[in-house]
Amino acid sequence: MAVYTHLSAERMSDLIANYDVGALVSAKGIAEGVSNSNWLVETTGQDGSGARFILTMYERRITLKDLPFFLDLLDHLAEKGCPVPRTIHDRNGAAFRMVYDKAVALIEFLPGLSVDRPSAEQARSAGKALAGMHHASQDFAGTRTNDLGLQGVSELFEKCSGRLAEIDPDLPQITARHMPAIKAAWPDDLPKAIAHTDLFPDNVLVEGDQVNALIDFYFAAREAMAYDLAVTHLAWSFEPGGGAFRRDVGDALIAGYQSVRTLSDKEREALPTLAKAAAMRFIATRSYDWLFTPDDALVTRKDPMEFVQRLKFYDEAGHSVFALAEAGGT
Amino acid sequence: MAVYTHLSAERMSDLIANYDVGALVSAKGIAEGVSNSNWLVETTGQDGSGARFILTMYERRITLKDLPFFLDLLDHLAEKGCPVPRTIHDRNGAAFRMVYDKAVALIEFLPGLSVDRPSAEQARSAGKALAGMHHASQDFAGTRTNDLGLQGVSELFEKCSGRLAEIDPDLPQITARHMPAIKAAWPDDLPKAIAHTDLFPDNVLVEGDQVNALIDFYFAAREAMAYDLAVTHLAWSFEPGGGAFRRDVGDALIAGYQSVRTLSDKEREALPTLAKAAAMRFIATRSYDWLFTPDDALVTRKDPMEFVQRLKFYDEAGHSVFALAEAGGT
Repeated sequence: MAVYTHLSAERMSDLIANYDVGALVSAKGIAEGVSNSNWLVETTGQDGSGARFILTMYERRITLKDLPFFLDLLDHLAEKGCPVPRTIHDRNGAAFRMVYDKAVALIEFLPGLSVDRPSAEQARSAGKALAGMHHASQDFAGTRTNDLGLQGVSELFEKCSGRLAEIDPDLPQITARHMPAIKAAWPDDLPKAIAHTDLFPDNVLVEGDQVNALIDFYFAAREAMAYDLAVTHLAWSFEPGGGAFRRDVGDALIAGYQSVRTLSDKEREALPTLAKAAAMRFIATRSYDWLFTPDDALVTRKDPMEFVQRLKFYDEAGHSVFALAEAGGT
Repeated sequence: MAVYTHLSAERMSDLIANYDVGALVSAKGIAEGVSNSNWLVETTGQDGSGARFILTMYERRITLKDLPFFLDLLDHLAEKGCPVPRTIHDRNGAAFRMVYDKAVALIEFLPGLSVDRPSAEQARSAGKALAGMHHASQDFAGTRTNDLGLQGVSELFEKCSGRLAEIDPDLPQITARHMPAIKAAWPDDLPKAIAHTDLFPDNVLVEGDQVNALIDFYFAAREAMAYDLAVTHLAWSFEPGGGAFRRDVGDALIAGYQSVRTLSDKEREALPTLAKAAAMRFIATRSYDWLFTPDDALVTRKDPMEFVQRLKFYDEAGHSVFALAEAGGT
């Protein structure tokens, strides 16, 4: 949550001059992004009436190989009418440029607010947008493996091996009990698309009840569509800070999704397993960060146990929380 | 350089509803301010055509007593045509409100860029704006003592007592030699106004060669006007990162200032002393921060020795760098 690299106004003006967006007028470093630096920039615009963009600098080299996938995906989805920001290409057609040996991309700015506690109507709109994105990505040429699928999650837990109890004494046995069960129950032949895989409310910008933008696609990958819905269910349907399940929000999310794309019987059947897998994914990454993030890092450590609570909830509730989905209703 | 307090979109929307600025559309935490949290917010505007503001949350209680001074000053200067952002008052006329026991203020957003290495023309424009601000503040009713005048600087050095050598072995004798000389030479009867006292290039927003906004008045105080010019000379006239003196920039700054307000003989005579005092002010605050900022703080420590170099420069150069000012010319 910071700007990691100083980019002078002079350097940024030079950079912006490579794009057909007018001259740089204003630039504010914004407190978003864990591994990227971001600026909200304003230019005079092509026609002089002003335009705004997010300038992102990718601080970790590892993302560079995936960058064309992420940036092309935005273009593809925006072209198909999905509410995602477009990538602005430079005068030579490049989707990103290098500054100080780091990749930078200029992304369309879309207005909207990230709410902490979404309403059911906002969840319905998010479900629609998610299903629309799954449809629209079917003919996207790019592909990327989900690093944080079950295999990746298992590997993360192995890296934490022997130290999970430092987080909570019960955590080792919880993962040991649930991981094999989830693996065994996961159906391999669910239909796939490009999935966002991290569509928390802070990655959705709303205007009133309506979704105006899905953002932060840096975990997007080819993955089971129903898993993406399960992640979003997990991310949206609980009171902030590890609180109670919000049935109305979860139901509206699934109903919104199904108003655009109907889940198959197999997908509906899999939802409890997929939701538990989704919980495991965030338990794994948060546990890893908890154990291996230096105390003096700029990033705030997030408690993995919040998702253990959600894992237990899905385990106990079973199919009942997805009854609407099972009925195939809206 | 961070957002210290999480303010949900829901809470921020409620807050914005107290102002006659339309509904909240977007809010991005911005990476500015050392002791404040700041957001760049967009609303639908009074007339629906959109408006932008900086929302500032004052994280340290100590600023609260001075807040009416700072916010009223912005209104006074803006009213007089100075390029400073206005304070937006709520529907009850209040300049600030309390959220989570912290004061928040909504400030007009002014576009512009903060350059790292200003041009002479930008310095000329800044000099004009500074003099204009000094003129405009003459009939401002509020007042505030400069905590970082010579007395405050002496007290900071006392708090660092015995530890300055940890920063640089020469630092104790440098301060011991210069502080008494500066005190002895400081003329007490220089004309005063409300001075910015911290007008570094990053507190000035430019559009091309012209200053569009002076910002961050949180060190403003009643102080000798020529001292404010000396601070600005110190802040603008050297290559970034402690480099060489830039005569053309320093000359343009003073010429710009004098095109609006002519320095008296006494003020011109005092400039070398005032510039050394200004250097001492930043040596003192940086030394204190260097010694007493925890290693894990979010704030980057700045090297005090950069200003020791500038102190030595002014000491050796004497009146020669202010020759233009002494000639009273433009």
